[in-house]
Amino acid sequence: MLSETYPASKKEVLYLKIANILAQQIRSGVLKVGDKLPSIRTVEKIYQVSINTAKQAYMELEKKGFIEARPKSGYFVSSALQRKLSVPSVSAPDTAEAREPGDLLKKAFDSLSIPGMTQLSFGVPDPSLLPVEKLNRSVVKMLRTLPDSGLAYDTPQGSFNLRKNICHWAFVWGGNLREDDIITTSGTSNAFYNALMATTKPGDTIAVESPVYFNLLQIAYSLGLKVIELPTHPLTGIDPDALKSVLHKIQACALISNFSNPLGSCMPEEHKKAVVKMLAARGIPLIEDDIYGDIFFNDKRPVPCKAYDEEGMVLWCSSVSKTLAPGYRVGWVAPGKYKDKILRQKLLQTIGIPSLYQEVVADFMQNGRYEHHLRNLRRALHANSLQYLSAIEEFFPEGTMVSRPKGGFMLWTELDKRVNTVDLFETALKYKISITPGRMFTLQDQFYNCMRLSYGLNWTPEIRDKLSLLGRLIKNMI
Amino acid sequence: MLSETYPASKKEVLYLKIANILAQQIRSGVLKVGDKLPSIRTVEKIYQVSINTAKQAYMELEKKGFIEARPKSGYFVSSALQRKLSVPSVSAPDTAEAREPGDLLKKAFDSLSIPGMTQLSFGVPDPSLLPVEKLNRSVVKMLRTLPDSGLAYDTPQGSFNLRKNICHWAFVWGGNLREDDIITTSGTSNAFYNALMATTKPGDTIAVESPVYFNLLQIAYSLGLKVIELPTHPLTGIDPDALKSVLHKIQACALISNFSNPLGSCMPEEHKKAVVKMLAARGIPLIEDDIYGDIFFNDKRPVPCKAYDEEGMVLWCSSVSKTLAPGYRVGWVAPGKYKDKILRQKLLQTIGIPSLYQEVVADFMQNGRYEHHLRNLRRALHANSLQYLSAIEEFFPEGTMVSRPKGGFMLWTELDKRVNTVDLFETALKYKISITPGRMFTLQDQFYNCMRLSYGLNWTPEIRDKLSLLGRLIKNMI
Repeated sequence: MLSETYPASKKEVLYLKIANILAQQIRSGVLKVGDKLPSIRTVEKIYQVSINTAKQAYMELEKKGFIEARPKSGYFVSSALQRKLSVPSVSAPDTAEAREPGDLLKKAFDSLSIPGMTQLSFGVPDPSLLPVEKLNRSVVKMLRTLPDSGLAYDTPQGSFNLRKNICHWAFVWGGNLREDDIITTSGTSNAFYNALMATTKPGDTIAVESPVYFNLLQIAYSLGLKVIELPTHPLTGIDPDALKSVLHKIQACALISNFSNPLGSCMPEEHKKAVVKMLAARGIPLIEDDIYGDIFFNDKRPVPCKAYDEEGMVLWCSSVSKTLAPGYRVGWVAPGKYKDKILRQKLLQTIGIPSLYQEVVADFMQNGRYEHHLRNLRRALHANSLQYLSAIEEFFPEGTMVSRPKGGFMLWTELDKRVNTVDLFETALKYKISITPGRMFTLQDQFYNCMRLSYGLNWTPEIRDKLSLLGRLIKNMI
Repeated sequence: MLSETYPASKKEVLYLKIANILAQQIRSGVLKVGDKLPSIRTVEKIYQVSINTAKQAYMELEKKGFIEARPKSGYFVSSALQRKLSVPSVSAPDTAEAREPGDLLKKAFDSLSIPGMTQLSFGVPDPSLLPVEKLNRSVVKMLRTLPDSGLAYDTPQGSFNLRKNICHWAFVWGGNLREDDIITTSGTSNAFYNALMATTKPGDTIAVESPVYFNLLQIAYSLGLKVIELPTHPLTGIDPDALKSVLHKIQACALISNFSNPLGSCMPEEHKKAVVKMLAARGIPLIEDDIYGDIFFNDKRPVPCKAYDEEGMVLWCSSVSKTLAPGYRVGWVAPGKYKDKILRQKLLQTIGIPSLYQEVVADFMQNGRYEHHLRNLRRALHANSLQYLSAIEEFFPEGTMVSRPKGGFMLWTELDKRVNTVDLFETALKYKISITPGRMFTLQDQFYNCMRLSYGLNWTPEIRDKLSLLGRLIKNMI
């Protein structure tokens, strides 16, 4: 696989200048914690810059933790200013030749089956966060309700009932989908795999985030695809301009638009619109992994790119694997123009997926139990994220940078340059802590001083001890 | 896709001569129904021919319905001699350029969802043949027994308990497998798909039976593979010599060794041994679909090719989709040397398959319920096959040829050359009968006068009426 890069932006100096002026005002106390900042329009006028530059200045301040956005109210000087750690850098993938991260992935997976391991590596919800009893009751109910008890082959397109409920569910973000627009799959992985398979052929090039979910790199490799890693902002995801500059080189684009894994970034609506538009204009499909979209910590579900898809060029992939039942392997794709191709692929690969679990998930969605459960899950994960963040601030060395996800499961940390997280991974394993080294999230020689931590496990004194231990291990490497 | 053929055998004349002499003796009454024939060794000595030629002569007589083999007793003049219809011809794929069978597959699948359709097209067991209540009880039991109720991700290799039971189960045919040799999959389709994916790359050529299971052609197409269709005997499957003559052109071979779909052929043990040996000597993997192996009508399970695999070059694929629960999507592959590659593929495609159903199947195997169920299923399908055969003899026009499967689900019929089963398919649909046209089972312009009929549906007066109607429709086309 080859990997390329995007040339640095020209607007850099201007937005940084504005950000620095405002940061100075905050530091000097001209603007105090809780104060409202001038609107972006005002900044545009005062500094005589484009609205994009004004926005970039605010994003820079948000990234640094100086300010925070409040829905429908504007920007305020952040109370998190007291936080010691800043968020990680915007990634800048270099042009070096791509290299596989070796057997790191296998090692990380193998660590899962070691007894007594504190699993901070993979993004799975704590079992206590899942509604086991309710789901089991639904399984028994559906066994009795389904005419064939789930013994017959399902249709290749999947349960009508589930597809109907997914469409209802998509109303929340304005999704205008009909049952016939959906194909159910064996989890999001399978949706994503099939979406990439349907939209590319071996030798094609795709654009992705950087750092990027490691399984996406593996899928691309297995399908014979080249990968361009785009510079990615820890709060707002890929820069639409960066994508624009490589449009002539790519045959597809694959993104986790909401609460990306591993960065936790969430693309602003304007970015989503811009990305969908520029890709559609070139006839380039967008494969959107929206598995984390329902796990938001603010008051509103972020809209997926699919909401802006007028041409049938966005393949929206999701599932209940991160929210309800990883083991059910129930996911789906709304593949737009690629429906027939994906139906055919599914037929060949598996014929169909089990009916029973599809009906259980449909039942859960239909009766409002899913929304009820999600509210609890979001609260719990949000609380976890804050606890983990505080512990990192307390135990990790000064200079550590850490993301501020507003949803999902993941913290991305950027450590001192002297720390190699591949070594840290090996050392931590001896203390029964499993982390994910940054190198797994790229094909280039970068992110060696980064790691992903999942806060899926519920906060306990034991987790605190493990994070404290992890902090000591990091300090020993500096 | 390209397709090639195998030159006609030189030994043809000799074995036919011997067969004709014996047939003459049977016709003239020298040998009577129930009489035992001389052993193959004796034929070898009397006629001064090779043992292979002697065997071919007997296979020819068996094919024509003159004689039948009784396990461990030798060959006898067949009581089925009274049958009016002979078995179909040995296939002789031509060298014409390969052509896709168009949208036949989609049409056939679509016909499944038409209400009131008598489904003779697909090989699925009648719902009444499946142990619904016992399986449901096992589902409820496993929900309570599994530590995570099946909510957690399964490991990529699959349930240890199921893999252990598959190995125990394989003892029946002398399978020397350990748990670690098996990977569970989403049905046999998924095992087969992954086995082909792991052993080939786009542009490679594979050798297959002819007629060949249509999904195999579709999978080959989707993976960018070329296909060589081999001449295939309706009783004994592909001719090892035919395979031998194309070894230099192929990178893999894919077969349904036992009760092939659609022919119903079952490879003799010597053929299996010879095929495994010649492929291994060339380092060519054999992908073996053994989904029908447990549905035998004689007294012994036929051995799969995997039993003779010393080099880890046979990828043995099977499932419970035809025997116990199509909708569970529980299958497996024993992939020999290709294990790591398939594990990796499974991880990318689906992560894993649901645990619950794997445990239910393991439970069923472990407690002897599976064997008990299979005995009933075999009896029922055998009875069905005889009823369907009789009805075909009664209602189909003279000159119709039909296979005599000794296991599995399928009858292959060869009709008068004037009958085009693609047209018959369309006509029959109007009468709510779904059949599978022969053209679906090849990439060449052949089998237009053939069709596959499944006897999975239990025998009823209605089925009899439908077969009678089908016979009339066929007669109308002559």
